[in-house]
Amino acid sequence: MPITGTQLIGQHNQAGTGPAFQAVNPATGQAIAPAWHGADASQIDQAVALATQAFGVYRETSLDTRAAFLDAIAQAILDTGDELIDRAMLETGLPRARLEGERGRTVNQLRLFARVVRDGDWLDARIDYAQPERKPAPRSDLRMRQIPLGPVAIFGASNFPLAFSVAGGDTASALAAGAPVVVKAHPAHPGTSEIIGHAIRAAVQQCQLPEGVFSLLAGPDIALGLALVRHPGIRAVGFTGSRQGGIALMQAAAQRPVPIPVYAEMSSTNPVYLLPGALAARADSLADQFAASLLGSAGQLCTNPGLIIALDGPDLDRFAARASQNVQAAPAATMLTTGIAQAYRHGVKQLLAHPAIDPLARGQTDDSPAHCQASLASTTAHHFLADPERLGVEIFGASALIIRCASPDEFQAIARALEGQLTATLHLQPGADDALAAALIPILELKAGRILANGFPTGVEVCDAMVHGGPYPATSDSRTTSVGTLAIRRFLRPVCYQDIPDRLLPPALQAANPWHISRSEH
Amino acid sequence: MPITGTQLIGQHNQAGTGPAFQAVNPATGQAIAPAWHGADASQIDQAVALATQAFGVYRETSLDTRAAFLDAIAQAILDTGDELIDRAMLETGLPRARLEGERGRTVNQLRLFARVVRDGDWLDARIDYAQPERKPAPRSDLRMRQIPLGPVAIFGASNFPLAFSVAGGDTASALAAGAPVVVKAHPAHPGTSEIIGHAIRAAVQQCQLPEGVFSLLAGPDIALGLALVRHPGIRAVGFTGSRQGGIALMQAAAQRPVPIPVYAEMSSTNPVYLLPGALAARADSLADQFAASLLGSAGQLCTNPGLIIALDGPDLDRFAARASQNVQAAPAATMLTTGIAQAYRHGVKQLLAHPAIDPLARGQTDDSPAHCQASLASTTAHHFLADPERLGVEIFGASALIIRCASPDEFQAIARALEGQLTATLHLQPGADDALAAALIPILELKAGRILANGFPTGVEVCDAMVHGGPYPATSDSRTTSVGTLAIRRFLRPVCYQDIPDRLLPPALQAANPWHISRSEH
Repeated sequence: MPITGTQLIGQHNQAGTGPAFQAVNPATGQAIAPAWHGADASQIDQAVALATQAFGVYRETSLDTRAAFLDAIAQAILDTGDELIDRAMLETGLPRARLEGERGRTVNQLRLFARVVRDGDWLDARIDYAQPERKPAPRSDLRMRQIPLGPVAIFGASNFPLAFSVAGGDTASALAAGAPVVVKAHPAHPGTSEIIGHAIRAAVQQCQLPEGVFSLLAGPDIALGLALVRHPGIRAVGFTGSRQGGIALMQAAAQRPVPIPVYAEMSSTNPVYLLPGALAARADSLADQFAASLLGSAGQLCTNPGLIIALDGPDLDRFAARASQNVQAAPAATMLTTGIAQAYRHGVKQLLAHPAIDPLARGQTDDSPAHCQASLASTTAHHFLADPERLGVEIFGASALIIRCASPDEFQAIARALEGQLTATLHLQPGADDALAAALIPILELKAGRILANGFPTGVEVCDAMVHGGPYPATSDSRTTSVGTLAIRRFLRPVCYQDIPDRLLPPALQAANPWHISRSEH
Repeated sequence: MPITGTQLIGQHNQAGTGPAFQAVNPATGQAIAPAWHGADASQIDQAVALATQAFGVYRETSLDTRAAFLDAIAQAILDTGDELIDRAMLETGLPRARLEGERGRTVNQLRLFARVVRDGDWLDARIDYAQPERKPAPRSDLRMRQIPLGPVAIFGASNFPLAFSVAGGDTASALAAGAPVVVKAHPAHPGTSEIIGHAIRAAVQQCQLPEGVFSLLAGPDIALGLALVRHPGIRAVGFTGSRQGGIALMQAAAQRPVPIPVYAEMSSTNPVYLLPGALAARADSLADQFAASLLGSAGQLCTNPGLIIALDGPDLDRFAARASQNVQAAPAATMLTTGIAQAYRHGVKQLLAHPAIDPLARGQTDDSPAHCQASLASTTAHHFLADPERLGVEIFGASALIIRCASPDEFQAIARALEGQLTATLHLQPGADDALAAALIPILELKAGRILANGFPTGVEVCDAMVHGGPYPATSDSRTTSVGTLAIRRFLRPVCYQDIPDRLLPPALQAANPWHISRSEH
């Protein structure tokens, strides 16, 4: 199916009337056909009105129907074949293997949520039976289930054009919860977005669902996003992107006549502690693993390891030397957009200009407009603690800072000085580093959503125990995750039914339990 | 123990240095000794610093220790005996039987949360075991538990001096979650608050917990509350009160450098539909039940039935006549404060001055400064739909409005025009009213946290299936409840542990499962 460059409003294509934009090949700087015109106010209204209309039917679909829909989206995405991968490579500069892997992850994520929907635990069904004989007052029959909040606005992320985009984790969890979605395509990969949009739309049709369950809007700037967040029909927001963008959406949502929740995953420097025992035992292999984690995808990952914290001394020198070699050897990778590459270069330049910074290594460079020249630098804990905001800033891309500590006491001081993070990592040697780790973990738990040992934070498993979240400013809401099955809770709210006759109750709460879900009963 | 009129900061009493205030007997308008001086900035700092310090220990207490603490608070409250009830009667004007009942509910609520803590389901423990052989990449060992957000600021409500105040549902659920609390006493019942504060403090000592687990601050106005919400050490807020107050706290929390969640339970008019079959069958008994629900506690309940919606005609005339008789016979009850009584009188006056309003009945009146003269009025659906904001406004106290509908179609139009509500009620006759009820429930589910049949919304059961919450402006956050066991989730956030050695894991996630909690494993 050719890419149309239109807005996908329910099952209909409409040409936008807003400002024109095109995808740009980041490797060459050349525009890629076709051109889009941004969605206009009436198209936003139409998409939200269709979503609102679809909500009544979609939120009460059976578990099987809804799960089958998620499975159908997964299959339809697989069916796009090379068309999808080729277009995504062109628009993002990401290599084929990475995109094929990401497609697999996206499909598995949809299927995982189909499993979640089928087992029904997300309904959190609870029954407190009536106690007519209770003294001093009888108890009514009280039953609770979770229902979806309403239509959700979802923002595609630049750095995962499949797994955090049109059919990514936010969409999968919102659809699983029973919420129609209106997706704002990321303007850096509108063609990839449209291909996925067609796949979802085909699944909507195949499953005979109301068309408003899914719409895809495109526009070049934040105006479309803000209009969506401010639209009275939108009841929640899922976003992955910059801190600046996330904060703008949080503020817009808080200022609505009826405020709504915003789930924004924003920024993180992902501190990695190399505890002394581990560093003594394996400085070289740690350096190699670190460099691989830092340099993959040109460092454009939310969980990129941006801070290395270790005790100063010969072991750290060995680590730094080897990591520097790795960074120097790193080819000039293509970043997602020239804008991201410019921001990266500006960020590295600012950091290296800081008087407390000791530059260690730069990677290879080339002439392409969006190239990433990797960077490794170091400072001391003393300096870091004097200016944690500037030295601890996230630089989106392959840039990392080694923090040399004069004593292990500074490990805890740095942990306390950190902003909220998605992850925190400890490399530790059994026995030797246990006391230091045990002292750090309680601090890190309050700073990060995920704590790792002896690994690197890139590569986020999609499973039941995953938390891809964390305290502000890593995310707007530390109570949730944007990856893993717990993500469905973001789009749900509880409703209690008191003495409602069985025939008027939803199936999840009826006496016969027709959906065969597990319910807590008292 | 005499009431000291001081701030209870951990285990220490400190005289405030802020503006002075005293409780006032609403029945007489006379001040009650002693006087308080409001908490000053340094005392707020001390209370939050102690809470922050206590957090590290308290959040990792065993399930048994924490549950025993909640049980000890319950017992210590019972041990206050008549001293508590006498003071609360003096400060609130509420009758003894109501306050004794409320004490029982408060104690049961603490014991219910002790049970919740002991069973450990709130930890939501999840384990995804490592799959070292998985292709293309092995899976790490991933484990998740919920941890508390941090110190919580809790605001005592005026209308439930025990069950929604110093040791009320917010405190019980926050302490159950492992969060220390700093309570702001409601200035209308500071003595009652201090008696409860002493009881909690005794339980803290008895259970050998760090003193900062609980502090009680008092002040005459919103300045103390705003300072608490803005304090960087406070990580969440629980509030029950006016819409104006709740919105001020929401805005303050959203504007912090690190925003925090606010759980504000604010306002609701609690629409009650009398469907035609039910009204034909039992107009008189419905009128009696309605009047009892409206007039109890001088109508000062969040779930007070403020809107009656029914089909115009002889059955509704019969209901209105009988309800009017009940209202006319209602004695002039004493409201909680003269300020609340003034706001009530102003609200009723405004409503009755509306050209679309037909006054039906007023209750008895007297000379006391805080008396409540009940009010019943009516309008038509046509008029209501033309001005739902002014006619649907909450008037805190015993005031209700009957909305006469010309046809059942208007039932749905009114439901759609409603703001978010705590409750919505349907009186229905089996068979006769099913179709109307089935059409209304899907609309009301999106407007309210609890839907009742054939009852009245006052009297909120504390149990697993209860939802005392609802869409804005009923509350600030429809995803939660402030009554019932689900309330514990408000103060928790998930943390994931990846490949952390067993000896460094919290007990809830260790291989041996030393707490014997249920965990989901995959």
